[in-house]
Amino acid sequence: MKWVNVLGGIVGAAALLGLGIILGHFAIPKGSDVPTPSIFQDLDLEILESIMQQLDASRIRENLRELSREPHLASSPQDEALVQLLLQRWRDPESGLDSAEASTYEVLLSFPSREQPNRVAVVSPTGNVLFSCRQSEQNLTGEQGGPDVVPPYAAYAPPGTPQGLLVYANQGTEEDFMKLQAQGIKLEGTIALTRYGGTGRGAKAVNTAKHGVAGVLVYTDPADINDGQSSTNETFPNSWRLPPSGVERGSYYEYFGDPLTPYLPANPSSFRLDPDTVSGFPPIPTQPIGFEDAKILLCQVNVSVYNRLELRNSSNVLGIIRGAVEPDRYVLYGNHRDSWVHGAVDPSSGTAVLLELSRVLGTLLKKGTWRPRRSIVFASWGAEEFGLIGSTEFTEEFFSKLQERAVAYINVDISVFANATLRAQGTPPVQSVIFAASKQIPAPSLGGLSIYDNWIRYFNRSSPVYGLVPSLGSLGAGSDYAPFIHFLGISSMDIAYTYDRSKTSARIYPTYHTAFDTFGYVDKFVDPGFSSHQAVARTAGSVLLRLSDSLFLPLNVSDYGETLRSFLQAAQQNLGVLLEQHSISLVPLVTAVEKFEGAAGALDQRISALQKATPDPLQVRMLNDQLMLLERTFLNPRAFPEERYYSHVLWAPRTGSVATFPGLANACSRAMNTSLGSPAWAEVQRQLSILVVALEGAAATLRPVADF
Amino acid sequence: MKWVNVLGGIVGAAALLGLGIILGHFAIPKGSDVPTPSIFQDLDLEILESIMQQLDASRIRENLRELSREPHLASSPQDEALVQLLLQRWRDPESGLDSAEASTYEVLLSFPSREQPNRVAVVSPTGNVLFSCRQSEQNLTGEQGGPDVVPPYAAYAPPGTPQGLLVYANQGTEEDFMKLQAQGIKLEGTIALTRYGGTGRGAKAVNTAKHGVAGVLVYTDPADINDGQSSTNETFPNSWRLPPSGVERGSYYEYFGDPLTPYLPANPSSFRLDPDTVSGFPPIPTQPIGFEDAKILLCQVNVSVYNRLELRNSSNVLGIIRGAVEPDRYVLYGNHRDSWVHGAVDPSSGTAVLLELSRVLGTLLKKGTWRPRRSIVFASWGAEEFGLIGSTEFTEEFFSKLQERAVAYINVDISVFANATLRAQGTPPVQSVIFAASKQIPAPSLGGLSIYDNWIRYFNRSSPVYGLVPSLGSLGAGSDYAPFIHFLGISSMDIAYTYDRSKTSARIYPTYHTAFDTFGYVDKFVDPGFSSHQAVARTAGSVLLRLSDSLFLPLNVSDYGETLRSFLQAAQQNLGVLLEQHSISLVPLVTAVEKFEGAAGALDQRISALQKATPDPLQVRMLNDQLMLLERTFLNPRAFPEERYYSHVLWAPRTGSVATFPGLANACSRAMNTSLGSPAWAEVQRQLSILVVALEGAAATLRPVADF
Repeated sequence: MKWVNVLGGIVGAAALLGLGIILGHFAIPKGSDVPTPSIFQDLDLEILESIMQQLDASRIRENLRELSREPHLASSPQDEALVQLLLQRWRDPESGLDSAEASTYEVLLSFPSREQPNRVAVVSPTGNVLFSCRQSEQNLTGEQGGPDVVPPYAAYAPPGTPQGLLVYANQGTEEDFMKLQAQGIKLEGTIALTRYGGTGRGAKAVNTAKHGVAGVLVYTDPADINDGQSSTNETFPNSWRLPPSGVERGSYYEYFGDPLTPYLPANPSSFRLDPDTVSGFPPIPTQPIGFEDAKILLCQVNVSVYNRLELRNSSNVLGIIRGAVEPDRYVLYGNHRDSWVHGAVDPSSGTAVLLELSRVLGTLLKKGTWRPRRSIVFASWGAEEFGLIGSTEFTEEFFSKLQERAVAYINVDISVFANATLRAQGTPPVQSVIFAASKQIPAPSLGGLSIYDNWIRYFNRSSPVYGLVPSLGSLGAGSDYAPFIHFLGISSMDIAYTYDRSKTSARIYPTYHTAFDTFGYVDKFVDPGFSSHQAVARTAGSVLLRLSDSLFLPLNVSDYGETLRSFLQAAQQNLGVLLEQHSISLVPLVTAVEKFEGAAGALDQRISALQKATPDPLQVRMLNDQLMLLERTFLNPRAFPEERYYSHVLWAPRTGSVATFPGLANACSRAMNTSLGSPAWAEVQRQLSILVVALEGAAATLRPVADF
Repeated sequence: MKWVNVLGGIVGAAALLGLGIILGHFAIPKGSDVPTPSIFQDLDLEILESIMQQLDASRIRENLRELSREPHLASSPQDEALVQLLLQRWRDPESGLDSAEASTYEVLLSFPSREQPNRVAVVSPTGNVLFSCRQSEQNLTGEQGGPDVVPPYAAYAPPGTPQGLLVYANQGTEEDFMKLQAQGIKLEGTIALTRYGGTGRGAKAVNTAKHGVAGVLVYTDPADINDGQSSTNETFPNSWRLPPSGVERGSYYEYFGDPLTPYLPANPSSFRLDPDTVSGFPPIPTQPIGFEDAKILLCQVNVSVYNRLELRNSSNVLGIIRGAVEPDRYVLYGNHRDSWVHGAVDPSSGTAVLLELSRVLGTLLKKGTWRPRRSIVFASWGAEEFGLIGSTEFTEEFFSKLQERAVAYINVDISVFANATLRAQGTPPVQSVIFAASKQIPAPSLGGLSIYDNWIRYFNRSSPVYGLVPSLGSLGAGSDYAPFIHFLGISSMDIAYTYDRSKTSARIYPTYHTAFDTFGYVDKFVDPGFSSHQAVARTAGSVLLRLSDSLFLPLNVSDYGETLRSFLQAAQQNLGVLLEQHSISLVPLVTAVEKFEGAAGALDQRISALQKATPDPLQVRMLNDQLMLLERTFLNPRAFPEERYYSHVLWAPRTGSVATFPGLANACSRAMNTSLGSPAWAEVQRQLSILVVALEGAAATLRPVADF
């Protein structure tokens, strides 16, 4: 036995060697500036507190002013200038990171034509133009004019000049069209006027086109965005409300990622689909308009859309802080950079926070005071507004690396919608770390009430495990977290400050995607003093630090048990009888959920025991791998072949109202009206098996690793 | 800074603590029987050598006698008795493993009917039976009779009683049928007589049915199996050759895994396809016959097949040795247990070796002399003969766990085909560990020549890196390694002793899948003295130990560079001009291969440097993770949607003769005769991009982990 021979007889030498290693790790002279990493390095609460104090509201304000000074539509020169700004900040010798690089993809974007502006006009039966909609928003603050303000348009809507009678189609949902048909209204060849809300942008065009409609207009209704107010003196710049001329721009593409390179990074050499064969684009010309114009449209309307597709270069910027102990574990923190116009709220409020956080951490790093246990990757994504393109291409390019090594993804897009409360979305394992962070930080202007205690007043639920807690939302596909959670199975979250819903029913902050979303708007109406920005910086920063620095990963995987249990109960209560009628048993699902709960509970106990004992660094690493990789076990790329990118069996899109496992819910709603033994019922069984296998597999990874 | 506060001032205490830890790890009293694990535990060459000496040929012989005493068709009572035998051995208090369990799946198998034996007869135009083929093999050794010897049949061939003129169709390949058609031979309604070889079993029926043939016979030609010999006195039991009555049984299912539960483990509750809709079964009645009968068939032939499908329970047996330091890293070693009849060679020669290896390791374990650094999982798979069913269901059930944690899979199915030389198949990273093992072990009866030096005499190639080396074969889907490499991306290998090809051209050992594959056959003709079995036990055992015990994983990932380079050169030389004509550039592929080579070379240097330095256990673990997970980076479950389970972009099935990347080769061969800009040419570009992204992703995971 080699080690006995070599080492057994020379215990003294081994101890000396060991002592040397230990000394190397621990015996740093008091007051030294450059600590040598210890493999037992853990979260340092003093450093955390000092970081919290250094996150500065006025600097966030200055960041925002600089970021939103000019419109910076994806791939525009101003967007490129911001790439340079980020690189400069992240390479700063005094407050920069270890390294920063831009990486560029060649992606398919859609723009209105400069030469032929899109136009919406009311025409007489003889073809005379009786009225034309505005082609740009009113220049109320001097920032809505100029060549860099992209005119309102529906990105990816095809060009065309349809003309027809106007039909009001409410929100353009399937239900809305069924109602119109029931009223005997002829839709063929008409122009549909729809309002934002109720369904996705692209879905409005898709639903509409099915009924033979020739063109779609989409407007923002004051009832949906302005709590009903619409006059000039009630709206921006006199309040935060949307002016009559404001128009919400947006992408009307149904999927996400570069439309020409699904599942492939949009590198110049990558295979590209023929744009004519791309699915997910709106099928008919579509144009957004303001409510000022919407209210006077009538009769025959002509819509002229001259959008065109262009291959453009769009960059992500990545900034890295190398982990001291586990550099191969990445905590990612990102936000997009591109905006429709100035984008002060969307997305610069998030980027302003990002830059302040990276400044504080970079400064500690450059001083040698601190280096995280794990690596931190800051990301500024390109072309999010066109469909989460930069982040999606990134996940496609670094698929393997991220699947192996990413601990979690933190997204802070719009950091402040409003000043009332924290709002967080995420998968269950991140709940505990957000709670822990938010309990330690005071809420702005509330006399010391913590962010957590304020949060619970606005959003809460009764947890069977914890009692009353703030409620975490679930992640859809509204921002760059989507490819991380749905395509890669990385535990993700989105953090922001948001509304008091008793004070406004606005669908979203009113100037969203308009030329009125400017620095002045934020400074005056959204967050004067920037204390909510600071609160978000602190919360997200604390979450980031806890994930990057804690010896034991603060991902509480057993919190998934609550979700599984509630999905299971919803299935039993709402689908149980139906399934029984088709001889489909939920017993295997019940068993799988129980196994998950059992394995997660036992794991919790092993963690507690290990935390009390002297931790062996490999044991901790093995345990952390179980925690990190749990989310990955819920992925099945063959589960939903028709849903591009969606592979997570718990968070794929769900149609229908039962809040349960999406594959099961969707298959049931499709099978509902088919006969016994139909292929649709077989699909229900298949989805149930996919789910059971995923849950059993997840539970298996939580059991003691030596049991196989 | 917490650690400075807490520890900086108490260096003495920290050192004491550290000393304690180190003492705990190293300071084992000399001669102690139960070593406490050290996180630096490494391969012990003395223990390895002692294991090599303990692997006993006569015990392997006794294992084989016991294993092959009775026919043990998958799911038969005798198969179940072997499950109990394995459990008993692996639970033995003196030579057992840490734990052993059987796990059972409910899978769809196919059997001939006892009541209505399959029949092949020559009939007169008036329907009189002029001649009937044998329904079983001749009882030459007393082991070919009795109810447990399953009559020859083609598993999964559908029942039916076609009758028609006999047409000789050679090997039943597409080419063979094209020749017959060119000769004006009418195939509609005929019975095709084909010989084994040239194409898979199932493919013969598929190809044949396309041409309207009503039934297929498959016989074993003496030229293919017996080096031309066919008389009774030249064949078994007078030599190792196949007797005239011998018939090769086999599965005619085109895919692998349980046919009713693709991608799902065949647990009782799993969703099952309707057997009528399963693809991959032979489309027409098919029956194998011996050459004795084949040579006298003529005119009108009637084939009666009464096979039926049955859901049966089939078990895997798993035996675990818990790793001392990294219990969450699994080195898997497996073989199937089921045979068509007695299966002395196939598979019991492998299982006999498996049991001897597990006995020796189990004994060391129970004595407390040794425990591997990583966990070892021994597996005895069920129902392999029907299509790798047990192993495939296992990979489906433990998909996540295995993808996260499996280091490698070692398959030893038929351990000895013949006595001449080692033969190994595997992916490039396992080449070095097989070389290292085989260099240290003497070849049987060759006066001290190593297995390696003997091997290189039979199979060799000129490596641009190493010069002349033994050549490793690549892994198809011939045994249970298939789901591990193709579905899970786990580095895999298959190890055996095999023929001197200058002495026989037999397609495979002659009694393969017949009732003549018995203990006496092995003992007398295949490996008298069992020294080749011992050689395989030592080689596979050494590989297993090296993988389970070495501090640094002995997977040489840079050896993938040679494969990539040779595939690339083949593509350039054979497809370059064609691709250029279609404006498809290989430059991105060249760049990707170069990046891989560069990253792998740099990694090699970092490994060397780390091996010379004092290794930090986390640094070693991070490095080992890079090595272990490289194979995973070549998986893309969306690359070949039509090829069930095959996701590895380098080893998916390749049609056509160019030894290059399979996706590219296959797409090119399909596009070849289509026009410029056809969808088939777009698929070539898509496959090229999939490949480039995989190689770039692989290279990215080999770079320093802190660079992101």
